[in-house]
Amino acid sequence: MTTEDFPSASQATLTIDLDNIIDNYKSCIKLGRGVDCAAMIKADAYGMGIAQVAPALFHGAGCTTFFVANLQEAIELRPLVPEANIYVLNGLFPGHLEYFSRHNIRPVLNDLEQIRLWASVTPENRPACAIHFDTGINRLGLTPEETAQFITDDSLREKLHISLIMSHLSCSDDPENPMNTQQLRDFKTITGYFPGIPASLANSGGILLGPDYHFDLLRPGLLLFGGNPAALPLPETIKPVFQITGQILQIRTLTPGQAVGYGATWIADKPCHIATINIGYADGYLQKFNNCGWVYAKATKLPVVGRVSMDMITVDVTDIEINAGDDIELFGEHITLEMAAEVSTLSQYEILTGVGARYQRIYKMKN
Amino acid sequence: MTTEDFPSASQATLTIDLDNIIDNYKSCIKLGRGVDCAAMIKADAYGMGIAQVAPALFHGAGCTTFFVANLQEAIELRPLVPEANIYVLNGLFPGHLEYFSRHNIRPVLNDLEQIRLWASVTPENRPACAIHFDTGINRLGLTPEETAQFITDDSLREKLHISLIMSHLSCSDDPENPMNTQQLRDFKTITGYFPGIPASLANSGGILLGPDYHFDLLRPGLLLFGGNPAALPLPETIKPVFQITGQILQIRTLTPGQAVGYGATWIADKPCHIATINIGYADGYLQKFNNCGWVYAKATKLPVVGRVSMDMITVDVTDIEINAGDDIELFGEHITLEMAAEVSTLSQYEILTGVGARYQRIYKMKN
Repeated sequence: MTTEDFPSASQATLTIDLDNIIDNYKSCIKLGRGVDCAAMIKADAYGMGIAQVAPALFHGAGCTTFFVANLQEAIELRPLVPEANIYVLNGLFPGHLEYFSRHNIRPVLNDLEQIRLWASVTPENRPACAIHFDTGINRLGLTPEETAQFITDDSLREKLHISLIMSHLSCSDDPENPMNTQQLRDFKTITGYFPGIPASLANSGGILLGPDYHFDLLRPGLLLFGGNPAALPLPETIKPVFQITGQILQIRTLTPGQAVGYGATWIADKPCHIATINIGYADGYLQKFNNCGWVYAKATKLPVVGRVSMDMITVDVTDIEINAGDDIELFGEHITLEMAAEVSTLSQYEILTGVGARYQRIYKMKN
Repeated sequence: MTTEDFPSASQATLTIDLDNIIDNYKSCIKLGRGVDCAAMIKADAYGMGIAQVAPALFHGAGCTTFFVANLQEAIELRPLVPEANIYVLNGLFPGHLEYFSRHNIRPVLNDLEQIRLWASVTPENRPACAIHFDTGINRLGLTPEETAQFITDDSLREKLHISLIMSHLSCSDDPENPMNTQQLRDFKTITGYFPGIPASLANSGGILLGPDYHFDLLRPGLLLFGGNPAALPLPETIKPVFQITGQILQIRTLTPGQAVGYGATWIADKPCHIATINIGYADGYLQKFNNCGWVYAKATKLPVVGRVSMDMITVDVTDIEINAGDDIELFGEHITLEMAAEVSTLSQYEILTGVGARYQRIYKMKN
């Protein structure tokens, strides 16, 4: 949406701190004790804006490898970071080959058919590729049967320039889950067949599982954006990266018995002041926050009351002095992704990627 | 996201049927027995694209009055429908006045302060305005006390060109709710003080409540976009307006005991085929569909199994013959908004406005 010729006052704002994204990337490298580190920036950099996040990570943090979900995202990313390695996770499809070649994009090959398709391209037109081995998530990647077949097919392997072998953990959010050690063991076995080729297993959760899981390349996503991928305390070096601020449209004084919002789901039990804020579910603040969300203003946490509307929420501001036009924090330093996910039962990932398009966006970076 | 120089094959697609939106608008007029009808097109026309929907309704259906949530949406809308009446629901704020004047946009005035602010503008620079009376939702609009004050303040009223008086129903989804008749009664009383000025009470739910609620202008939103606003059967003349189609990235054969997806929340109890589809929660297909969503292909409803990922879902396709690359319907004729809302506990509104930005968009219109 255009911001040309528009008054920025009284407009809900999404502020993204690129310095903190850079710092979180550097913290991942420290957690990996120096292991090389890529960045997952699919889904518009988890909703934070690939056009700003990718160059910041490349120039500001020295990140040279990026993963996106599909070819279109990769084509959009290429001019933003012309020198970087770009991998497409969802694989290779007939009709897409020339695009990978032309834009120097690396496919993550997910089955033998894709591998054979890529091997059929003239070598000089063919960037390097990654091979994805499925060790248990059963989503994408070579099955154990295909893996066994590929490992022994020297003629097929020799045709390819494999720059990475990888697998994906299914339960890294739960450090005690036996799936982790099983996937680790199976992936280790596979790496033994690919000496000299970098290997990668650790998403954000895998990074926190410790050095056994780190191999040669980390692939953090949520950690870069300040979320906590696991049922463990978030490392203190990981910082929040975004803030959403709305404004009060109106404040009403309610008497006991009066209801608020659609469905009249909240009823005042004492005299109170209810502020209506200019952010709603169309902005990604979903109805799972009905009567349970929290916002922040004047050093006070304030409860969301009633149902979230498409373009508004209502908040009990009885305990503070505040006026129409004043700012309210919906997410940020005081209302973290973890807190919001807990009350709403949405995932931190969904809250990030669900951030809407109507906000005025401000990117902060020191240099 | 650009679609330039990109292969459209194997890309998830959002198809929007503008003819059906036009037909739904005409059906609303029929439900209103000829009462004038506006269109709610806030939040990018409920996610369907204001740039396409607004001109289609103006030129294809004769709709001349549009409501949006905020000033920025109105400024974006103005060049799309230069002759239309545009109302901004969230009110008037200091610093915004000249924008309303310059773009010929009508504010919906929500309190006495906003009314006085608008009255202070030189009349020749001042478009018409709406006055919003709160009859019980306690969100925006003049309180009963302000209403009583405004009604008797002839000098203030005479300064304004009021083109509409309105109120908003809080429980129109529930025809039996006594809030409806109370709000109707209170709004009727208010209209008595504004003879000759058009009045509007009915959102989509209000339209279905019957003629008593229709007054002079209907304000449908969800009905235009094929959703059902109430706990009543949807009128047969209201048609679905969008379809989301994904493609199969890969199909795996699972043996009993094998798990699918993050957290291994779904485990095969017999041999089965699981297809991975290129749409995930970053596209608006949220994790509330984990292990309970339905998709459609080859004349068969297919269950979503396992957790929804950021860029993918997994679906049990054991019962049909289907291949990688084939299309799967996530929403459309066979998977309606009502069905999806019921299984996911998301609202139909949220599913619509949550539709993501990564789809290839196709707009259908006969002329």
